[in-house]
Amino acid sequence: MSLASAPNRTPQAQTAAPIQALFPYTLSLADDALILGHRLSEWSGRAPMLEEDIALSNLALDLIGQARLFYAYAGEIEGNGRNEDALAYLRDEHAYTNLLIAEQPNGDFAATMVRHLLYAAFVHPYFQALQQSKDPRLAEIAAKAVKEMAYHLRPASEWVIRLGDGTEESHRRAQSALDDLWMYTGEMFHLSNGERSLVQNGAAPDRAAIKPAWDATIDRVLAEATLKRPPDRWMQTGGRAGRHGEHLGHLLADMQVLHRAHPGAKW
Amino acid sequence: MSLASAPNRTPQAQTAAPIQALFPYTLSLADDALILGHRLSEWSGRAPMLEEDIALSNLALDLIGQARLFYAYAGEIEGNGRNEDALAYLRDEHAYTNLLIAEQPNGDFAATMVRHLLYAAFVHPYFQALQQSKDPRLAEIAAKAVKEMAYHLRPASEWVIRLGDGTEESHRRAQSALDDLWMYTGEMFHLSNGERSLVQNGAAPDRAAIKPAWDATIDRVLAEATLKRPPDRWMQTGGRAGRHGEHLGHLLADMQVLHRAHPGAKW
Repeated sequence: MSLASAPNRTPQAQTAAPIQALFPYTLSLADDALILGHRLSEWSGRAPMLEEDIALSNLALDLIGQARLFYAYAGEIEGNGRNEDALAYLRDEHAYTNLLIAEQPNGDFAATMVRHLLYAAFVHPYFQALQQSKDPRLAEIAAKAVKEMAYHLRPASEWVIRLGDGTEESHRRAQSALDDLWMYTGEMFHLSNGERSLVQNGAAPDRAAIKPAWDATIDRVLAEATLKRPPDRWMQTGGRAGRHGEHLGHLLADMQVLHRAHPGAKW
Repeated sequence: MSLASAPNRTPQAQTAAPIQALFPYTLSLADDALILGHRLSEWSGRAPMLEEDIALSNLALDLIGQARLFYAYAGEIEGNGRNEDALAYLRDEHAYTNLLIAEQPNGDFAATMVRHLLYAAFVHPYFQALQQSKDPRLAEIAAKAVKEMAYHLRPASEWVIRLGDGTEESHRRAQSALDDLWMYTGEMFHLSNGERSLVQNGAAPDRAAIKPAWDATIDRVLAEATLKRPPDRWMQTGGRAGRHGEHLGHLLADMQVLHRAHPGAKW
């Protein structure tokens, strides 16, 4: 089904959601997918095996495709003429509201796969719930993305199990990545202020309601991987408010350089 | 159809081609695809538009997938236990026998698209012919790859036309890329010594026989793009003999670093 065939393209009509909340919410979903997709694309041509090079590039492509759909819709909601490329490439660091987990550096292959497991185990049930959104465009994008994320969970789980339950060295690397990334998982379950109004009128899922499904997936995979679940101590937040770590600036510089040099590639 | 279902996996049986010729020939087809695929993957996350980022990554993935199939078959022919990853990552620069056009730097978007047109306009009819190879494994790989290259010709032609017949600046860039890359096109039509024996027994197509189809495609696209076909002066060769330009070493260093650090990713 093409997006153009959605029954009604005016979002407020269905949801009565304040447009002020719907725009930043849609943008934040786009940012999550773009930033993590960009991180994965950094592996392109650099993975240690041809098969994994192809696999990681495919995961990256899925996420960047999801980002495109969310950005295009965000641009329509905003109605200021900013298209997907303007939203993806022409904002400053503090205007990005991606979850901090999405911007964490790739580290080694174990860290990339642990990060992907932590994210996919959340976003798969989250998109399942978003399919029921009273906003038909969000529901439609989620229906496409949920299939992709169901697939992403497979290699991420399998690799974390294979590395965790592998050699002493691979176990050590996987556990270390898990310990380092754990503090970024709490933010996935927080509602921002504007998002609460969308949950109340049925446009967005309640993030806290996703926690049991996430816990179940994580506990099952970690048990099989013989990895120890870190304790829920202090959790890092700030991504949704545009407060990012040192790494996002470098990522954006790398990503934006060509678009900024040739806006719209119109030479 | 999976490769495993090929009627007979022993190449010499069908073709009577000397194994000494079949191995380097198959390897050279793998190298062409891998090196050009790696070049395209360098655009990942750096294209000026989300749509083109996704499109270029998809082209790269096709080529790397073709390389995998050719390397896997080359490894079987060689029978020394080198698998696809060992062949892709663990050879020195002078052991790579890719066409020089495949290793040329991306330059700007126009140069990337001109390079891709010059290559795809050759390899599409070449794989069409290779489908008739008396070596069933080569015929099978070609049957898969030919569909992909038919698709590659579309965006490459469309972009060259759009840029050539675009603004003064885009025309200038496309013509300049065409003039710079032209000297690498002659090598595509040369048979190496070993390859001649494969042509004689029907395992490999005659490269010279591909020239009329290539000329027709190039002339049609250049005419529509209002670009001038460069004269056939001196043509650069040497790639098939392992003599490469300065750029391949950097590409290989970038591509091989992780595999060499973690051979087989077995930590």
